[in-house]
Amino acid sequence: MTEIIASYRVLGRPGSFEKKAEEIALGLTVGTWTSLPELEQEQLKKHKGRTVSVKEHKGANGDEVIADISIAYPALNFSADLPAILTTVFGKLSLDGKIKLINLDFSTELKKHFPGPRFGIEGIREVLNVYDRPLLMSIFKGVIGKDLSFLSHQLREQARGGVDLVKDDEILFDNPLTPFEQRVTEGKKVLEEVYRETGHKTLYAVNLTGRTSGLRDKARKAKELGADALLFNVFTYGLDVLQELREDDEIALPLMAHPSFSGAFTSSNIYGASHSLFLGKLLRVAGADFSLFPSPYGSVALEKSSALSIKHDLLEQNEFKRTFPVPSAGIHPGLVPLLIEDFGIDSIINAGGGVHGHPDGACGGGKAFRQAIDAVLAGRSLEEDCAASPELAKALGKWGSPVESK
Amino acid sequence: MTEIIASYRVLGRPGSFEKKAEEIALGLTVGTWTSLPELEQEQLKKHKGRTVSVKEHKGANGDEVIADISIAYPALNFSADLPAILTTVFGKLSLDGKIKLINLDFSTELKKHFPGPRFGIEGIREVLNVYDRPLLMSIFKGVIGKDLSFLSHQLREQARGGVDLVKDDEILFDNPLTPFEQRVTEGKKVLEEVYRETGHKTLYAVNLTGRTSGLRDKARKAKELGADALLFNVFTYGLDVLQELREDDEIALPLMAHPSFSGAFTSSNIYGASHSLFLGKLLRVAGADFSLFPSPYGSVALEKSSALSIKHDLLEQNEFKRTFPVPSAGIHPGLVPLLIEDFGIDSIINAGGGVHGHPDGACGGGKAFRQAIDAVLAGRSLEEDCAASPELAKALGKWGSPVESK
Ligand SMILES: [Mg+2]
Ligand SMILES: [Mg+2]
Repeated sequence: MTEIIASYRVLGRPGSFEKKAEEIALGLTVGTWTSLPELEQEQLKKHKGRTVSVKEHKGANGDEVIADISIAYPALNFSADLPAILTTVFGKLSLDGKIKLINLDFSTELKKHFPGPRFGIEGIREVLNVYDRPLLMSIFKGVIGKDLSFLSHQLREQARGGVDLVKDDEILFDNPLTPFEQRVTEGKKVLEEVYRETGHKTLYAVNLTGRTSGLRDKARKAKELGADALLFNVFTYGLDVLQELREDDEIALPLMAHPSFSGAFTSSNIYGASHSLFLGKLLRVAGADFSLFPSPYGSVALEKSSALSIKHDLLEQNEFKRTFPVPSAGIHPGLVPLLIEDFGIDSIINAGGGVHGHPDGACGGGKAFRQAIDAVLAGRSLEEDCAASPELAKALGKWGSPVESK
Repeated sequence: MTEIIASYRVLGRPGSFEKKAEEIALGLTVGTWTSLPELEQEQLKKHKGRTVSVKEHKGANGDEVIADISIAYPALNFSADLPAILTTVFGKLSLDGKIKLINLDFSTELKKHFPGPRFGIEGIREVLNVYDRPLLMSIFKGVIGKDLSFLSHQLREQARGGVDLVKDDEILFDNPLTPFEQRVTEGKKVLEEVYRETGHKTLYAVNLTGRTSGLRDKARKAKELGADALLFNVFTYGLDVLQELREDDEIALPLMAHPSFSGAFTSSNIYGASHSLFLGKLLRVAGADFSLFPSPYGSVALEKSSALSIKHDLLEQNEFKRTFPVPSAGIHPGLVPLLIEDFGIDSIINAGGGVHGHPDGACGGGKAFRQAIDAVLAGRSLEEDCAASPELAKALGKWGSPVESK
């Protein structure tokens, strides 16, 4: 049957979970069951939620223990869009005590209503013509209140350092000093100049912002002006808005999902939803080509298991193209061995301060990262390459090189 | 200066909060400050965030204590829309440790960019011509898998009981058995019949669902077909989507915001955001005429202080029309004295099971609630009125009447 199976982690009294599961399965579908006449049961059978599994864990937490509950909701009950799905599986339920939404399992039939990434990892690699290494991304720094010439200079330096992508700061909105369209056209000019100079191609992801109903035209305009990719604060808009941007053939640009605001509902162990579901699976289902999330290494950090669970859901082979994991925050060249060990070749190494704070500036920072990547892929330690890689040497001098995974 | 002041509740080491506040104020605006040349400081001054207050609370929680931090963000830094504001004040920051967004204080100038409710409490009262009592609302029950005749019957019974509003179940989406447009036209027909029969006017809030970009046309169509109001699962779409529905003069229908999914980011004391901000202030700023939230009385309950804080933000006198508070879930006629004591005359008493589960059915349930409201407003106890109010007597017999506020 076409359905979605939602898995929850619940805290409650031992022995209470079978009943709780049944209450959810009925309460969020047909309402009641055992009191219904047989004829009505027959008629409603295909709409009835059902308990798939209840697993109570050992180990008390005060009077409460943890249980994993899975409920199947017939797809007949909702329209095939994420707002309807989230309302069904975690609308009222999100308000109902100590419960966290851990996973959603879409049936094959249901998946057909969702696009997945337009480009995916393979598509982005084709655009860049880079197949054999993690990509390198960097971020503008301190751009609020600055003008286009400042941005152009930063962009040029980052691109010269050999980064593959540069993204806008997510807090840069449309403003008179650096308007959206001019960022696109000026960015394009700068990156074409660097390409002519160095032969290295860099993509620039411009931040798509403003009122919801204006996003489509703004994105189409960006495409028309030659934009490379769009950065999008999806969780302050809505997953369905991302999906609509993905589905528009006149936009057809790589979409980079920023985790802005997502911490509000992914941080608690007791409430909200899992990192893997929102920053992993649902972003991919809705069509993000890139998912940014806190790396396990920096000051703004995720637990390593959470970061890896996101990666898993972005990369797992399934009906959809794969989404690039972009573990971010606190990244410097010394972390490249760890990043590649944890996130693999099909990931993006993304740095802000670790590029701009390099003793030789952003250009040197980019080079240091590229040198670190080359060393790791060649099976050498970063230290071995220092003699021939002065930028890497300076980066390690500044930030060090942790050798062990946390 | 035009700005927004965000207040946060933070957990951290004693003595760490002044520094933390300054890091936020700079990190989410100009990036750095003390290291900047004087000329650049002059140029960036109007973009710089500033710490408004830091208040560390006594009483340790392990090594950590609670602090309240307020930061002012210049409105120059963002476009005047809620996605930009949320990204600025709680984008990256939502991912940064034990921090909860408690309040946003919009400057007078900034408020001008937001509409507030189109109708508000006074506007809804005018439509209904009811000025002197809380309104009564009820909810369809068990409608999934049922056809239009089932809905019509339920609607008629509820309206005959004297309820002022009936809302769709939020988990009822567009479906072949009860399509959106037919719910509107059939609902209108039923309610007009009841009006001719009883002289009582009831409004029906139809659930506006589907893909984001289709909502505007669907809402306009509903208006054209004579819909009374729209129910909207705003937190599975986005606050800006609600605002755009509010601003559209061709829709111009009362908007009822459902708290679906909001528990994911309001339930934790440590992470996410406050109930009063999202179910109170921001819904009102964006233009909801009604805000539903869990009452403090039922099984799906908010703490009373949280429920009252929502009410406060919906009703406080300010530049915007007021939004009806709709404390919901677990409401039966015996709770009416408490509801009126806690939420006042300008609130909506909303019940599902407490209407449909009445021994005389939904019509009797509605009557029992209206009788309870009349008793309370006349200064009589519910028990006093039982002799003359048989429906109320039966309701109290079934559900009782708690006399004390929790
Ligand atoms: Mg940033
Ligand atoms: Mg409901």
